[in-house]
Amino acid sequence: MSTSTKKPNIQLYTDQTPNGVKIPIALEELGLPYEVHSIDISTNKQKEDWFLKINPNGRIPAITDTITIDGKEETIRIFESASILLYLTEQYDPEYKLSYPHGSKEQYEVVNWLMFQNAQMGPMQGQANHFFRYVPQSRTNASLPN
Amino acid sequence: MSTSTKKPNIQLYTDQTPNGVKIPIALEELGLPYEVHSIDISTNKQKEDWFLKINPNGRIPAITDTITIDGKEETIRIFESASILLYLTEQYDPEYKLSYPHGSKEQYEVVNWLMFQNAQMGPMQGQANHFFRYVPQSRTNASLPN
Repeated sequence: MSTSTKKPNIQLYTDQTPNGVKIPIALEELGLPYEVHSIDISTNKQKEDWFLKINPNGRIPAITDTITIDGKEETIRIFESASILLYLTEQYDPEYKLSYPHGSKEQYEVVNWLMFQNAQMGPMQGQANHFFRYVPQSRTNASLPN
Repeated sequence: MSTSTKKPNIQLYTDQTPNGVKIPIALEELGLPYEVHSIDISTNKQKEDWFLKINPNGRIPAITDTITIDGKEETIRIFESASILLYLTEQYDPEYKLSYPHGSKEQYEVVNWLMFQNAQMGPMQGQANHFFRYVPQSRTNASLPN
């Protein structure tokens, strides 16, 4: 078992979507260095084989970072915006700018609401965006896939 | 700031839904004692004022537990199934039956997939269930709320 070192080597894979901008906002708030790799989702770059090794679900945002395990440097991959926010604050928020100490009552309340955003509000906003913008015909004549 | 004690006083509020059964499964696997409070969602019990103090979003499952902060016992509330699973494993899985050590590469991979289930698969399964079972007319003539 292993814990990470605190020296960031963050590679950010993202595009300009509501989920995609969450992570650079957090990185800037934490004052962390990072390299941006623009993933053009209009050309399905996020479904290419090299990216599926970073996020097997083929969606942005995702990050990789370098951690030291038993004295050896290894690459870690983090996907799903909530997972990335938890990783970044746990690893790189020693002054608790965006989080509270791990295991505290305050941090569990933060996780409650992060999961609420993640599982309730976010997916429903995504559905609304999809149906309003990209499949307007469904407003009068929808059918479910078989 | 505070960390929790390890003596559980878990009150489980749930019903027999796919999300509702996740938590008792985890509690049984961890061998934890808990009291079940059956929440009949067909009568909207989860929207009653007393329950909204436990989960302001008015959905099951949710738990409360007793933790000790600065020598004083306090009640903590945890809602959203992913948040509850993180809480239970962080507090009560010292042998790592269902998780890995906090901060390890393995645990971050677990969190990646927990968030995938939470934000991608779960909400879409919920939508499918809703449209197939409860609004069959939407299959031929759907309209979005104004």
